Amino acid sequence: MKKITDTELIRTANRRDIIQSLRIHGELARVELGGYTQLSPATVTSITSELVQQGIIFEQNVVLEPGGVRGRPKVKLQLNKNSAFYLSIKLSLNEIGLMLGNINGEIVAHRTLSMVTVSLNETQLADTIHSVVENFITQHQVDRAKLRGLGLAVQGVIETQGKGILWSPAVDGEHLHLVDLLSQRAQLPVFIANDANCLAVALHSQPQYQNINNFVAIQLGYGVGMGLIVNGEIYQDAGAATTEFGHTKFTLNGSQCRCGGRGCIEAYLGDYAIYRDASAIYNLPQSEFLHPSEKQMQALCERAQSGDQVMANIFNQAGTVLGLGLANIMALFNPQKIVISGPGVRDYAFIHEAMSKTLKENLLPYHQTDGVVEKFSWDEDMTGLGMIAIIQQQTD
Amino acid sequence: MKKITDTELIRTANRRDIIQSLRIHGELARVELGGYTQLSPATVTSITSELVQQGIIFEQNVVLEPGGVRGRPKVKLQLNKNSAFYLSIKLSLNEIGLMLGNINGEIVAHRTLSMVTVSLNETQLADTIHSVVENFITQHQVDRAKLRGLGLAVQGVIETQGKGILWSPAVDGEHLHLVDLLSQRAQLPVFIANDANCLAVALHSQPQYQNINNFVAIQLGYGVGMGLIVNGEIYQDAGAATTEFGHTKFTLNGSQCRCGGRGCIEAYLGDYAIYRDASAIYNLPQSEFLHPSEKQMQALCERAQSGDQVMANIFNQAGTVLGLGLANIMALFNPQKIVISGPGVRDYAFIHEAMSKTLKENLLPYHQTDGVVEKFSWDEDMTGLGMIAIIQQQTD
Repeated sequence: MKKITDTELIRTANRRDIIQSLRIHGELARVELGGYTQLSPATVTSITSELVQQGIIFEQNVVLEPGGVRGRPKVKLQLNKNSAFYLSIKLSLNEIGLMLGNINGEIVAHRTLSMVTVSLNETQLADTIHSVVENFITQHQVDRAKLRGLGLAVQGVIETQGKGILWSPAVDGEHLHLVDLLSQRAQLPVFIANDANCLAVALHSQPQYQNINNFVAIQLGYGVGMGLIVNGEIYQDAGAATTEFGHTKFTLNGSQCRCGGRGCIEAYLGDYAIYRDASAIYNLPQSEFLHPSEKQMQALCERAQSGDQVMANIFNQAGTVLGLGLANIMALFNPQKIVISGPGVRDYAFIHEAMSKTLKENLLPYHQTDGVVEKFSWDEDMTGLGMIAIIQQQTD
Repeated sequence: MKKITDTELIRTANRRDIIQSLRIHGELARVELGGYTQLSPATVTSITSELVQQGIIFEQNVVLEPGGVRGRPKVKLQLNKNSAFYLSIKLSLNEIGLMLGNINGEIVAHRTLSMVTVSLNETQLADTIHSVVENFITQHQVDRAKLRGLGLAVQGVIETQGKGILWSPAVDGEHLHLVDLLSQRAQLPVFIANDANCLAVALHSQPQYQNINNFVAIQLGYGVGMGLIVNGEIYQDAGAATTEFGHTKFTLNGSQCRCGGRGCIEAYLGDYAIYRDASAIYNLPQSEFLHPSEKQMQALCERAQSGDQVMANIFNQAGTVLGLGLANIMALFNPQKIVISGPGVRDYAFIHEAMSKTLKENLLPYHQTDGVVEKFSWDEDMTGLGMIAIIQQQTD
């Protein structure tokens, strides 16, 4: 049980609730805020006064519409969109993507830089990220006093307690303690999360999903990632390298996985695996670091689209593997919703049928997945949006 | 995020912390209680005074030992073991086991009754349990005013929000809303949990495990169950039928499982599966409801023990299947400890080697299981002890 002993802690939690309600609903009267947060009028008044004083929210007298009820004009509260900013830093193989969000979670500026990341050691990487961040702050005239934190969204495995990177295809070496290194350099709070967890938070912020308490996001792409939301909270504090869905097993002694093992789901379903399997049959252009490009993957979809049966079989197998993996997720978590996204959803049309068939055949009789599993179109901004939401949750 | 708005809620949580500390450590001075609970001296004094007044704890003047420090004698607090009782009701196939625990979690009385459960409908089952409970209360002269609650420990699948039984081999039919029915009859709070969750709570109360935050208990036996403790709390609120480890998949199109599916871990590892596989080869006595007796299972162990290679192979296969299942558990949860218990640990000597080998071969490189997976000898009291701890958590 989490210890609840500190009244300051309660006030912080209530303050976050109020900010989050304004974020979701836009402008609200104090009485509406009380309704959404279930806080007493006294608490709402006290906290909103503080937030007004700090310039985080402002009051607006709403003029009554013609025919409106007579009485004193209603006061609506709303977040001051210039009061706080959050910077997401997406670290991928030889690419750093920056995205600045405001307190409403809207994207204010972004930039993607191609640079060699994979040969840098821990210090070099911290220095590089720091300098990229400083340039971005200067270029976009970000008020440093209003920058609440930096968030590293990393393709790969995050260490326990969010200290750094345990393993990532984007970097060389293991156990890179980037959080402290970057925090020392930038003099700002730094957070870190796996990219699939960022996706889960971003998807869970969508209007149609935000009230779903038990939610799974699957990220298809180079690897196969997963983010799990249980009782409304991201499952991440348990330890390093959890919800590694891509490395659950399809079968003993199966295909070679990049993790060194065999038979992992990812070894059939990741871009590199599909491309590798297709390369065994077709004379395909070589791909870099087992990292086929989007264009190369699109070309495989076109083959399947044009009726090529061998390519269709490879996608079918990937769908079967995903279906069995999802059956395990259903048995272990029975989530209300499983949303599949990531760059790999480009293949969804070709894997969907086998996936659904295998999932249905391997479900427990008291589970059902009608309306549970669905695709969400991929947008590469989603990782950054999720990271911004994570920084907000930690700093509101 | 759970809402923390109510000061009464905080007081309740603090009160639980104090009772739980006394349960674990026996007699404690107020200053020691403050140390274990991290509560302020004022809070400790206020709550312990209330508990003394209610007769739940009592004070004792501890006489100083010869040579002890001079000053006023220390006051030690301790739980009054006659202040509160908890009744666990274990529902198995044609057997009801009752166990009465006191506030310290010690067993005060217990009784096991053989009776036909599997042909009873919802009302008949509630009536039967109620009458069994009433007889037990009368027979053991339990003070009803001190009985804090009843807990149903059920072999099978529990509904969301702990309302009743979704499915169980012990009963006929599905969706039995026993919690409300029994609560109406007994006029007491009634709780319900899957037997593997009870085992997880009981194991997690052991001194060597109680400080482990992320903990998995595997229950081998007729079926294969799992209890998951995340951040110190049992993972059970998410929905019905979660952590169904026995129905995660070893392989597509594998052995027939009693759930109706194929290839489930349980279909190789459950008592019924091992007995069924052995029956394909040996001329074994028939077993009831695919429910081989302990004696029948022991006989299979003796075959393996005596060097019978075919029986050894069946156990090896069961171990391989368990190893792959545990590899999936490691990938998804990376727990600090996985403890294997349940009546099926009788087979542990014969499945252990293949299990460890398969688990090691299928781990992610940044995971390790040295010292993580271990066996805990089975004692059938454990389910009841876990259920008593669950009632205590809910009613302290």
